[in-house]
Order: sequence, then structure tokens, then C-alpha cells
Amino acid sequence: MTHDAPPARPSPAEEARTLVAAAPAATLATLSDDGGPWASMVVFAALPDGAPVLCVSTLAEHGRNLRRDPRASLVVVGAGPPEDPLDAGRVTLAGVAREPEGAALDAARAAFTAGTRHADRYTGFGDFAFHVLEVQRVRWVGGPGRMATVDPAAYAAARPDPVAPHARRAVDHLNEDHADALLDMARALAGHPDARAARCTGADRLGLDLEVDTPAGVQAARVAYAQPLQDAAGLRAATVELARRARGGGDA
Amino acid sequence: MTHDAPPARPSPAEEARTLVAAAPAATLATLSDDGGPWASMVVFAALPDGAPVLCVSTLAEHGRNLRRDPRASLVVVGAGPPEDPLDAGRVTLAGVAREPEGAALDAARAAFTAGTRHADRYTGFGDFAFHVLEVQRVRWVGGPGRMATVDPAAYAAARPDPVAPHARRAVDHLNEDHADALLDMARALAGHPDARAARCTGADRLGLDLEVDTPAGVQAARVAYAQPLQDAAGLRAATVELARRARGGGDA
Repeated sequence: MTHDAPPARPSPAEEARTLVAAAPAATLATLSDDGGPWASMVVFAALPDGAPVLCVSTLAEHGRNLRRDPRASLVVVGAGPPEDPLDAGRVTLAGVAREPEGAALDAARAAFTAGTRHADRYTGFGDFAFHVLEVQRVRWVGGPGRMATVDPAAYAAARPDPVAPHARRAVDHLNEDHADALLDMARALAGHPDARAARCTGADRLGLDLEVDTPAGVQAARVAYAQPLQDAAGLRAATVELARRARGGGDA
Repeated sequence: MTHDAPPARPSPAEEARTLVAAAPAATLATLSDDGGPWASMVVFAALPDGAPVLCVSTLAEHGRNLRRDPRASLVVVGAGPPEDPLDAGRVTLAGVAREPEGAALDAARAAFTAGTRHADRYTGFGDFAFHVLEVQRVRWVGGPGRMATVDPAAYAAARPDPVAPHARRAVDHLNEDHADALLDMARALAGHPDARAARCTGADRLGLDLEVDTPAGVQAARVAYAQPLQDAAGLRAATVELARRARGGGDA
């Protein structure tokens, strides 16, 4: 069996876009009137190019700050916090928050309304103003040892992973009912022939993340599907194919 | 029956301390080399006066930022995010992050080790440095319409609520098995004689927060125990007393 090997895992730009697309809230850093930093929580949505849209009260400190100095940074933390919070994926965006006008304002309002719950609790008030963060710097941390500075153009061009945010149940199902198949994958496809156990820690459009128990300790590993997925509905067939390939003993 | 009426609810300073004591992680805002804000995630613990202790890598951007300009802000968001993230309690602390020395360093290390999980993943590395935030400004938001600027001295003097972080199961139990008692409380003790239903949304050392269904809509309400509690173990007896008092038809 031959096929073009897909990329091992989503790019940092994709990972960053996936985190931003999935998060309902973020922390905003702005500059207070003395130039010092000010951290606050905001709800947000993203434009198609990943630029965050905020709707903040100009009566609140962060809203006053943005009107005085539009420089801003946003950190988004992935859901499902692991045991150690620093194992969570997160991304920092930094740039300049502009108040959109005309068609840009319409687009910002539409994205915010579609992407946040209870948007009408804010967008209808006269003291709330839309801001769009023009992203100039992107720093992604996937967890221990996985991190990258992402080019803003690559961030804008990437697409959120269509599988990862919807994979939780499939991942749980794999761990609960198919531990043997995961062990086969770890041994035959992930470079750990001496694996003693394996569990799946995540799935995305390109493959599965595994945590493999080996004689040398617990190791992170990766198996890639035969083909990239278009959506989470393809996950079942892709993992069945992986299990079949692993049982066959081949390494693709 | 007479008794000194306890305060209706914990002070904003107590609420802020409670949030800070319970959170395993926070978002840090620092200043990048161009003076712009930079948001990042950190784990932290608190000293007995509520001052946050951080242990950050001097190789990471936030660590480099703090060494260049020690001004910093931290936002802590309460656990159990409600349906709308902006309903969550949160507190922003702002001030100056100092690198402690001598006995202050020992105290910071002890607080961090006791207050965070996996502290040894960070504190043993030569590139990690402890920082203690000297709190100069405190802004607390308890949810819609509940917010206050807190005097830093009041923040330092307050104690975290000993009940609220451990009340989840008791609150669930009240809602699942004692809806009738909650309705009695709403009618007899919380000023809503026309209540149609009531659920408990939280408990602290001074009383219960209720959400009451009335002919005029859903309203927030509060009932106070006869006496403040010292710990969560006293919650059961206090709510039994409230239910008994409510059934008696008196308003205390």
C-alpha cells in the first residue's frame, strides 16, 4: 500500500487558529493611563482571517484603555484544562485594536453575533464599542516543549481544524473501548514496538496524538491517517483504517 | 427570635481573595520591549496577604518583560464557567512584580510549592525566577451588576471564604432534593412572597445566593444564615436552620 504521506500534524498557525475559533472567552491585556498593563476578561469572536472581534464597554477600564492607546494583546487558552494548567494549549495575539466603521463594522458585528452567546446583552448598549485586533504577533504554546512564533500572514491564511474541537467523544470512545487498537497503533505505526499501553490524547484532521507507556517511560507519539479529514464525521472510518493497518503489522 | 443580623454577603475584598485562593492559573499582562501589552498564561499561588507568587521562565517573553519593566497585572477567573462567560466572577490585580530575596524568597517558594500542582516542574530550573506581585490596584467583578474597586489594604486584610470553594455538592443537593425548602426561603426570607420557584446558585460563609422565579421575572436574591460559618462542614446545619425558619413563616 502506498500513498502520499500527509503532514504529521497541523501547523502551529492551524493550531493557533483552532484555539481561537473554539474559545468563548479570552483575557485582554491593555495599557492603563500610566502605561502599565491591565488584564481583564472578554468574550470575543473571530473574523474569517482570525482577527479577534471584541465588544467592550467604554465605561470599563479596558474600554477606556483601548480608546486612549489601541495596543492590545489577547491570550486564548484551550478548553478541557489538563491536570497541570501549563499543559493546556494557548495562543497570545498582539497588535492594535481598531474601531471598525462602515462595512468593516457590519462584518465585525456579524462575526460577534454569530460567534458569541448572548451577544445581544452587549451589542445593544450605547457604551459598548466594537474593536478588531489587527494581529501583528502570534505566539503559540501547544504544551510542554511544543511552541512556536507564528507569522501573522500564516495565521491569517490558516484555517481552524475542523476535527479537533469535536473529537472529545471519539477520543473517549477509543480509550474506553479500543485500548487494544491504540496499543497496536503505538507498536506498529508510531515507532514504539515495545509499547505496553497507549491512550489517545487528541485527534485532528491529520491524525491522532497518543501517550504511550514504554519501558523508557511515558512518551508522546503520533499516528497519521491515510488521508486528511474534512470533518469530524470522517474520524470513525479513519481510526478503523489505522487500526486495520496496525493489526496488519505494516508501517504504511 | 432575635440575633444580630450578619452582613448580607462577603465583601468585595473577600470575594476577590476567594477567587485568587481558588484559581490554579491566571492570565498575566506584562509590557513588551516596545511598551505594548503582552498577555500570557501562568500558574500562581498566593502569599497569606493575597499577593500572587509567580514562577516564570526568564527565557519566555513574559519573564523577559518582567525583568525589563516589573509592572504587571493578573486576572483570575472563577471556576465553573456559567453559560455566559461574562457571568463568571473575576478579579484584576495590578502592581509591580518584585523578585524576592532571602526570607521573602523562601516564603514565595513555600507558597508556590504548597499552592500549585507540579511546582517541581518549574522551580528546579535555573531559568525560572520567582516574582511576587505587590498589589496596588484591585478590581473585582462578581457578575452582571456586581463589581467594585477594592482598596489594596482591604484586599490584603481580607480572608478567602472558607465555604464557597467547597459548596458545589451542597448546592447541587439543595437544588435536586430540597427545591421546596428553597422556595420557602425565597418566599419567607428573601422578600419574594410571590415566588414560584427558587434555585440556589452559590453558598458562602454568610448565606445562600438564590435565583427566584417571580411573576416579574427571574430575580437574584439572598438569604443569610443565623450565624456566619467557620467552614463548609457547617453548611448543612445552617441550611436546615434556614429551611426551618422559612417554614415557620417568619422573616428572622
